[in-house]
Amino acid sequence: MSMNLQTQRLWKFFRTAMWCGAGVAAVLGTTPVRAQALQDVQTASAPLVLKAQGSFYIGGEKVEQTQGELGNLGPGGHITVNQMYVRYMVPQNDRSPPVVMIHGATLTGKTWETTPDGRMGWDEYFVRKGHPVYVPDQVGRGRSGFNQAIFNNARAGSTPPANQPEFLRFSDEAVWPNFRFGTKAGAPFPDTQFPIAAVDELAKQAVPDLNRGLPTPTPTIKALSELATQLKGTVLMSHSQSGSFPLAAALLNPAVTKAMVLVEPGACPANYTDDQIKALSTVPLLVVFGDHRTNPTGMPSLPTWQQRFEGCQALIGRLKAAGGQAQMLDPAERGIRGNTHMIMQDKNSLQIADFILQWLDEHAGKPSARSK
Amino acid sequence: MSMNLQTQRLWKFFRTAMWCGAGVAAVLGTTPVRAQALQDVQTASAPLVLKAQGSFYIGGEKVEQTQGELGNLGPGGHITVNQMYVRYMVPQNDRSPPVVMIHGATLTGKTWETTPDGRMGWDEYFVRKGHPVYVPDQVGRGRSGFNQAIFNNARAGSTPPANQPEFLRFSDEAVWPNFRFGTKAGAPFPDTQFPIAAVDELAKQAVPDLNRGLPTPTPTIKALSELATQLKGTVLMSHSQSGSFPLAAALLNPAVTKAMVLVEPGACPANYTDDQIKALSTVPLLVVFGDHRTNPTGMPSLPTWQQRFEGCQALIGRLKAAGGQAQMLDPAERGIRGNTHMIMQDKNSLQIADFILQWLDEHAGKPSARSK
Repeated sequence: MSMNLQTQRLWKFFRTAMWCGAGVAAVLGTTPVRAQALQDVQTASAPLVLKAQGSFYIGGEKVEQTQGELGNLGPGGHITVNQMYVRYMVPQNDRSPPVVMIHGATLTGKTWETTPDGRMGWDEYFVRKGHPVYVPDQVGRGRSGFNQAIFNNARAGSTPPANQPEFLRFSDEAVWPNFRFGTKAGAPFPDTQFPIAAVDELAKQAVPDLNRGLPTPTPTIKALSELATQLKGTVLMSHSQSGSFPLAAALLNPAVTKAMVLVEPGACPANYTDDQIKALSTVPLLVVFGDHRTNPTGMPSLPTWQQRFEGCQALIGRLKAAGGQAQMLDPAERGIRGNTHMIMQDKNSLQIADFILQWLDEHAGKPSARSK
Repeated sequence: MSMNLQTQRLWKFFRTAMWCGAGVAAVLGTTPVRAQALQDVQTASAPLVLKAQGSFYIGGEKVEQTQGELGNLGPGGHITVNQMYVRYMVPQNDRSPPVVMIHGATLTGKTWETTPDGRMGWDEYFVRKGHPVYVPDQVGRGRSGFNQAIFNNARAGSTPPANQPEFLRFSDEAVWPNFRFGTKAGAPFPDTQFPIAAVDELAKQAVPDLNRGLPTPTPTIKALSELATQLKGTVLMSHSQSGSFPLAAALLNPAVTKAMVLVEPGACPANYTDDQIKALSTVPLLVVFGDHRTNPTGMPSLPTWQQRFEGCQALIGRLKAAGGQAQMLDPAERGIRGNTHMIMQDKNSLQIADFILQWLDEHAGKPSARSK
């Protein structure tokens, strides 16, 4: 980061502490380890003033299916598949570039909303800082849905069940080491920033992930590029499995991608051509990783988080060599320890958000001709 | 309805017209028949001021599954299933009972958000009228997810694929007559209130429906009752397949159900005992049906909408005989023709909302001890 950020750190800590304080004061009757309920959800101290909020879909294609493929509820015919749901909030004081927040594997846009322990999500926090925020559900999950025909066909015996794609879920036991809450389930790192008492609320955020049943590349990427075009320029922020999506979407149309923020990306691709690097170097890149990256993940078939971190350092190096603005945000390097894979839900989530917001101020610029 | 409503109709028409006018003026560059895009989404003329917004989950249960049941992404272990996602907005001027809006078959909470042609959804409109609004995704759909184990087991050959529940979808061809947009796809009723040019946007709102794979009764009902308890009293508003859910949730705890609004319910149960009717008669009930109810639905296995209407009239009769406040809102009877099954998305959706809002003012009362 810059000198500017260094000098502002103190008052940012103060601002974060104020937010947290306001939140804690608003909690009514919480106890540390019970399941989240409505009364655990904290109310901000100041109202949220929106110019607009709502939702819409991007993309999608019409397909024709039989009565059986549709589950025998009614006659066969046409349905729409592979469309992407997007929910948005535009602040009244809309003066900054929009930010599109894309969730990771087995999760939905809920990732960015109210945290498991009831604090303000990044969706609202970025809006309060002046950014319109757009939160999609990836195609294949949540309100974006998926193409169910192959499952109904297998049920009817007209296609082998082995043709069905797997629905993916992480067990709690897999989440703890892989998301670096601790060495294993129930054994948090002493310095963990994740709100461990609310870890079962994160478990509720998980839904079956049909990523393996989608066309390649996932239609989400084209939909993100289309959304960036409709926004006449946006920041694309990804997480985990969607890590490289902003890069892929930017390659479709670099001009409408104002910046890319990769939060704990599952991968920074190593195989870009020099031409692709040249195109990507026109878009500022920030990569954010939490702590405890050498923790064994318990997922032997996948890279460690330190390997992913190093892959992203290599990409940053290539982009900088091509003249790009690319950098790593590693809070641990600044003495902020214990951040996890779910850094947007960590106890210091707003502190991390402030780093990103300042980087956006410095690198994403002001859009010249946005309609919203 | 009451005399009061009759006398207020003129200014309500005027208010609705003002809203529509403001919306149309805010549209930039729309054309009548293209797919909805961001620029088709209208911005309200006044900001939306929220005391709070966010999301949380209700219910859910831990189950233990094998690596295969979880899709072989990582080790087996525990996951959470059957939890219910809820998004909420609380207005700054929070003086009215909350309203929980529950969507119907093959749909999600999106039903109540921005309409297919980009107008304000009932979620925001009710908030602007002072009601906190809570929008769940039913268990088995959207961000509430479902239990994927049986599908992965069938894929692996460890269970017969015929054991899989069917994922349900309606084809566009089934939607047109069944939702009473017209006699068949592409043939709208001349007086239809549905924004037909945007009908493909409704198609995008549909996702695979796993209702047949859920425990009976659906965990959504217990979750709704739990939500009503946490809210210390709420209005439960349902649509279509969720039609009877407010009644079922109210039977679990009538005291926290301030009113039930059934919008185009798929069924009003005929088999309640006298004791159940007595309990339900303590909760005001409004049933809302659109026009063209005798239109052949194209779904021979299901009742016609006129049959459903008559079933609800019978329930209203039983509740009134037991001393309850129960009534039918039939806009066609008031000369408002052409409303459809998606009445909350119809062109006159805010006019219909105003009827409901006034009924709530008259019947749902003010909560005495809500914490939010």
